[in-house]
Amino acid sequence: MLENFNARVLLDPNEVPKEWINILPDLPSPITPLINPMDGKPAPPELAFAIFPKECVLQEVSQDNTISIPKELREIYATTYRPTPLHRAVRLEKMLGINDGRIKIFFKNESVSPTGSHKPNTALAQAYYAGIQGIEELVTETGAGQWGSALSYGCNIYGLKCTVYMVRASFIQKPGRKILMRAYNAAIHASPSKHTDAGRTFYDINPDHPGSLGIAISEAVEHSLRSDKIRYSLGSVVNFVLLHQTIIGQETKVQLKKIGLEPDILIGCMGGGSNFGGFAIPFVKDKLQGKCPDLEIIGVEPRACPSVCKGEYRWDFGDTAKKAPILKMYTLGHTFIPSPIHAGGLRYHGMAPIISILSNNNIISTSMLHQTEIIEAGLKFAQTEGILPAPETAHAVKEAINQALKAKENNEKKVIVFNFSGHGFFDLLAYKEFMSGKLEDYELPKEDIKKALASPDMPIIDENQF
Amino acid sequence: MLENFNARVLLDPNEVPKEWINILPDLPSPITPLINPMDGKPAPPELAFAIFPKECVLQEVSQDNTISIPKELREIYATTYRPTPLHRAVRLEKMLGINDGRIKIFFKNESVSPTGSHKPNTALAQAYYAGIQGIEELVTETGAGQWGSALSYGCNIYGLKCTVYMVRASFIQKPGRKILMRAYNAAIHASPSKHTDAGRTFYDINPDHPGSLGIAISEAVEHSLRSDKIRYSLGSVVNFVLLHQTIIGQETKVQLKKIGLEPDILIGCMGGGSNFGGFAIPFVKDKLQGKCPDLEIIGVEPRACPSVCKGEYRWDFGDTAKKAPILKMYTLGHTFIPSPIHAGGLRYHGMAPIISILSNNNIISTSMLHQTEIIEAGLKFAQTEGILPAPETAHAVKEAINQALKAKENNEKKVIVFNFSGHGFFDLLAYKEFMSGKLEDYELPKEDIKKALASPDMPIIDENQF
Repeated sequence: MLENFNARVLLDPNEVPKEWINILPDLPSPITPLINPMDGKPAPPELAFAIFPKECVLQEVSQDNTISIPKELREIYATTYRPTPLHRAVRLEKMLGINDGRIKIFFKNESVSPTGSHKPNTALAQAYYAGIQGIEELVTETGAGQWGSALSYGCNIYGLKCTVYMVRASFIQKPGRKILMRAYNAAIHASPSKHTDAGRTFYDINPDHPGSLGIAISEAVEHSLRSDKIRYSLGSVVNFVLLHQTIIGQETKVQLKKIGLEPDILIGCMGGGSNFGGFAIPFVKDKLQGKCPDLEIIGVEPRACPSVCKGEYRWDFGDTAKKAPILKMYTLGHTFIPSPIHAGGLRYHGMAPIISILSNNNIISTSMLHQTEIIEAGLKFAQTEGILPAPETAHAVKEAINQALKAKENNEKKVIVFNFSGHGFFDLLAYKEFMSGKLEDYELPKEDIKKALASPDMPIIDENQF
Repeated sequence: MLENFNARVLLDPNEVPKEWINILPDLPSPITPLINPMDGKPAPPELAFAIFPKECVLQEVSQDNTISIPKELREIYATTYRPTPLHRAVRLEKMLGINDGRIKIFFKNESVSPTGSHKPNTALAQAYYAGIQGIEELVTETGAGQWGSALSYGCNIYGLKCTVYMVRASFIQKPGRKILMRAYNAAIHASPSKHTDAGRTFYDINPDHPGSLGIAISEAVEHSLRSDKIRYSLGSVVNFVLLHQTIIGQETKVQLKKIGLEPDILIGCMGGGSNFGGFAIPFVKDKLQGKCPDLEIIGVEPRACPSVCKGEYRWDFGDTAKKAPILKMYTLGHTFIPSPIHAGGLRYHGMAPIISILSNNNIISTSMLHQTEIIEAGLKFAQTEGILPAPETAHAVKEAINQALKAKENNEKKVIVFNFSGHGFFDLLAYKEFMSGKLEDYELPKEDIKKALASPDMPIIDENQF
């Protein structure tokens, strides 16, 4: 057998994980509840049930170590794209001059899903749970469109209506995503829109407002409260979304074990934290249980929106118009509008509470990268491994390259594994601009962040109440 | 084990086929040689060697039953995307009301390659052979861009320069493909261009000429003859390309065997014939050897360019400007310019000589479909199986649906397998036009075909000379 035939590790459809891994019982500090934005108190279950599918709300607060994946869901995963392949980046290694086998780079390929990213993992789960509960419509926001197209796909599979509020900057930059969502029968509005009170606040002043994930969330939440047959669907940040994504890390563990390796460094990009969380959590659980104390886990943020790297760990609204729950998390402030980088999926002011706790306790580390360096790395990846990464994913690619070169310099032996969260077939403008020398970096908007964090609008929550 | 977990059949990277299947020794009538367009005589090997990589020329005329796939190539396939999955279209079956298991629809998913289609199968092989021969540049034509991006990718992997002449209609309709090709370091010209004599004939009269595969081939061949370090690369039609694609059909056979099934109907779309040929040939070989006399094999053509369905079986130039070899094949005449349908990869006036012989001997059958019906079927496929098909591939999807419904009406038991040759992420305009009611069908251009076939320009070859 040729060694390189081991460079792509597949699992059988029967090996789709049977359960999700819940990190809540292992966290070094307890998870904080979702706070009702209306009164600053923990949201009572009936309020959460009015916003999210019921089963997801129960998962949000579950203290079980694992949660069973329903048979019907495992079947959908297995018949469409899961388990996804784990590839050794043999040609990238060669280009970096690290092909003596001492430093190995692997990537978990989530781009093989029908919509091209890890997002269907939770979209299918949420649509499934909404469907069995009798919900008729799911509404959501989307940045780059990865999440919007995944939920459109998921809803279509389970016969639900889907409405998507898409951040206007991406709505304009990524017309392909709109067509794909329409192909899955979804309704799409550029956000801020005139369809909601939250949207009109911005739209009436400037109909060309570039928008932000924060505003789009406000619109989607408002829309979801119109009827008892509509629920809001989130593609990241909250616990149950990270839970659904843990199939990524579980499969990765099995795949590495199959070829007799253990990772030294895990890398993922972070916007709201779902692909990073889903990839890392099964390993984090081991680390928290003392099984792999030296494992480094790195979350990568864009320099234009470095929620963990430059934000504060505190209570904040999940959205701009203060309609979504208040969360304890790293945040740049809910009024902060990030620069219009191509990695639209990373333009979020906050970070998943789970990831925030892990970072605050130094279980994971973080880094920040500029737009041009990540797109340049994305091109190198395409030229070696063939697949063009989404700009979000390119952050992980670049960090993996940096870590490999560092290990080379230090003459270390390392197994580096990163999550290849999605392809960039709908994000070609970023590459076009880079290749024509027109892609720009955005300086860290220090003043904007300072202003947003100092806003009197920031919530103050009495933690003694729980 | 749940039955549906068998609905996606994977093979291990080690199961990448070890050899290509050569159909030439089994053909019911002998393959005809490539004819030199300059003198109407069989092209001497030295002329063919000046155009194509040497190893490919040898494969073009080989009478061996199988040809070994070099280890390095198998390794590239195995570490990137092969073997590709075979999926049961469970949700499409359900939508068609045929979910009692008597009629089963499967598709071989070639869309998982880095560039999204089956084309890298031969692109990698040709670039590999060119590289070991010391060739520095490959030049080619492309319609929709599937082939151009595959060759750009292949050349980049093996460190060769790549130049692509892209049919202008597609160059305008599919800007994404251009960016992808540039990402792989290729140079791209809209065809007809001002860079070649063949292109200028059309360009000087009309710089907005929509072009055709025939014209683009002329330009590429002319370009390739400029230096001994440049060769021409073809993505379809000739024997060695179909040979390289036989890994598709071989894997499909192994996958069906794994789940204990034999196909009743095989379906593929046909432009030049490479995906259809590669998918069908391993089964055709069995059929010609009497092993599966009842197996139906259907090639699907667009109504706007039905080379086999409405063409004549005769000698014709492979290209418009009469620079490429003359082939015996089904043809609509090399001066025929097809209507600008979105399935740019099917806009070719001729058909692979191998497929032409099989059709002329009734080993395979053919059908013709309109643009709107195939895009409508493509949407249904996306809404059930998740993956948006390329317009070319949507021809196979629609025919599979037609065959399934016919079997249902006749209360027959059928295993229908089609080749899902590529995804449509770069072909969204076709879907956008369909969804806004703007997509048009083109009537069969009977007069144009009649005129092209009656042209005094059509070659007459004396078959007694060989």
